Amino acid sequence: MNKNYYAILMAGGVGSRFWPVSTTQFPKQFHDMLGTGDTLIQKTFSRLSQLVPAENILILTNEIYNDIVLEQLPQVSQQQILLEPAMRNTAPCILYASLKIQKMNPDAVMVVAPSDHWIEDEAAFIDNLQQAFDFAQNSDVLVTLGIQPTFPNTGYGYIEYDKTDRNNLKKVMQFREKPDYETAKQFLASGNFVWNAGIFIWNVQAVTSAFKNFQPAIAELFENGYDSYNTTAEKEFINENYAKADNISIDYAIMENAQNVYVLPATFDWNDLGTWGSLHDKLPKDEKNNTVVNAKLFIENSSNNIIRTDKDKIVIIDGLDDYIVVDKEKILLIFPKEKEQEIKKITALVTANS
Amino acid sequence: MNKNYYAILMAGGVGSRFWPVSTTQFPKQFHDMLGTGDTLIQKTFSRLSQLVPAENILILTNEIYNDIVLEQLPQVSQQQILLEPAMRNTAPCILYASLKIQKMNPDAVMVVAPSDHWIEDEAAFIDNLQQAFDFAQNSDVLVTLGIQPTFPNTGYGYIEYDKTDRNNLKKVMQFREKPDYETAKQFLASGNFVWNAGIFIWNVQAVTSAFKNFQPAIAELFENGYDSYNTTAEKEFINENYAKADNISIDYAIMENAQNVYVLPATFDWNDLGTWGSLHDKLPKDEKNNTVVNAKLFIENSSNNIIRTDKDKIVIIDGLDDYIVVDKEKILLIFPKEKEQEIKKITALVTANS
Repeated sequence: MNKNYYAILMAGGVGSRFWPVSTTQFPKQFHDMLGTGDTLIQKTFSRLSQLVPAENILILTNEIYNDIVLEQLPQVSQQQILLEPAMRNTAPCILYASLKIQKMNPDAVMVVAPSDHWIEDEAAFIDNLQQAFDFAQNSDVLVTLGIQPTFPNTGYGYIEYDKTDRNNLKKVMQFREKPDYETAKQFLASGNFVWNAGIFIWNVQAVTSAFKNFQPAIAELFENGYDSYNTTAEKEFINENYAKADNISIDYAIMENAQNVYVLPATFDWNDLGTWGSLHDKLPKDEKNNTVVNAKLFIENSSNNIIRTDKDKIVIIDGLDDYIVVDKEKILLIFPKEKEQEIKKITALVTANS
Repeated sequence: MNKNYYAILMAGGVGSRFWPVSTTQFPKQFHDMLGTGDTLIQKTFSRLSQLVPAENILILTNEIYNDIVLEQLPQVSQQQILLEPAMRNTAPCILYASLKIQKMNPDAVMVVAPSDHWIEDEAAFIDNLQQAFDFAQNSDVLVTLGIQPTFPNTGYGYIEYDKTDRNNLKKVMQFREKPDYETAKQFLASGNFVWNAGIFIWNVQAVTSAFKNFQPAIAELFENGYDSYNTTAEKEFINENYAKADNISIDYAIMENAQNVYVLPATFDWNDLGTWGSLHDKLPKDEKNNTVVNAKLFIENSSNNIIRTDKDKIVIIDGLDDYIVVDKEKILLIFPKEKEQEIKKITALVTANS
């Protein structure tokens, strides 16, 4: 395994659309959302460790999740877990992790990846990732893996690449934020748009240079701590300075500005498990398109439902169509699938009134 | 309080239409079905003890419920709990209890009452019961309290009384089993039909005579044990003989045959809490006719539902109408109200497959 390969696993999200299974105390990435026996972060870690040495995988998360990470990834040492002392968007934590890696190994090339997505075909993923590593290893480029869109989804950002580029890794023209439906349809018709899945590959020189060029304030803030990184002084520096960083995403901070961005249209399937509906798409279904996780289900006259409970719950349903039924300890949710985007709001309402 | 007053509380039922709240292990009468803070048997006991000395109230139940009775009615001694060693209909256990009471007090007059019904106006109930006790105390009569029917219910038995009888307690013409809908409508139109709620009042002489006349085999079986009753020998006699008794209801064994039967049309409201629907009728409702027991409910775009959970469960429902939603520990039921009679069958199916 290549000792120059590193990974940053992004594991600080709260997955509020999956409430009540996913909560601020125990968010989506730490759940076995598909009932496979592994949590999403365990799956992601094991997938990445096929190419990246396990000791080179850093976990970026919030302080409150530190114990969960150690419990779910016992092969990981405390030094591999980077704790954000404040909630910030992705740019600050990616730069912080990149500088730590640079100090460990100036020849490092790294992948940044979400910890809560689903990839079925791991061999294709590893193949794509290897291509990206090869491309990024010795070049001043910022690479992303783009997902082939299957329908005009308005919930994702898109990446437009140069149609004329005949290479596997294509020059990116621009990043496009979540489009409206008509625009999304045009994107698909054009044939040179892919979904932005938040998977990035670059060498440490390329990413730190990009920050210096496009986000000099953040770059300066975190470079001031360089001497402390990977030493006992690091924690104090981070606790004192992290919250000073702008709350900005890596897309907005770097990717939309840089001219040396390339995308590899991925050959693997992908599901961000962003909503109950996308989970329903991913899971096995009965002949009436009902999906069940954990429950022992007795269902009649019902179709297109997703039912998820704690282990060994007996569920009897009659005459229900297109519903999300989730039972988790002290919370029961019976909600129309078509309104799944509103679950976020419900979470807030219930939390405020309970 | 009149020391000659006794009561027999019938507490052996299994309430299968209320599954999963009501189970064979823990049936309806032992639950706080209305969320009042008291279980139904506790409510019934306290209601009867307004007229009947607490130590004169016997509980007829199955052996498996003995500990629950002692726990829920701590004022009751083990001697007051009569345990049926075999499942039999109501006639055998009523005679057995009546003979025990006769041996304690040959002047006893008693009420037989279900333990799992709901009576809101307890003062009216006590007033009616007092009238019945007064009438039955010194006369060879079998008295029943009849419920004024509010609609042509086909799920209850009816009692027809003599229209010309101007007394409060009216001579009964006949007992009628559960009618079809057209017949039930005729009953209501006639004006001299009441529902049979299974509440009976008589003195010990009258009931034991009636058994001798109409059920000589059962009478002989239980009179053979007379010497043992209320002694240490009783348990052995009952365990050896109880199962020999015919499996027959008090209505069929006695009431439908006797000529000295009287009914007092009750002035209290009554609900047998026989189904989730009847419970829904009884409970407070929100402006959209939803009823909730125990749950902390957040409900929108939904009407005519009954939702019952364990204490403090948070339930979020959107777009559901006319459903029974019951969550109890390891079981979740989401079932159309109009199919409530089928819950019995579901119980069997789930039990067989779990």
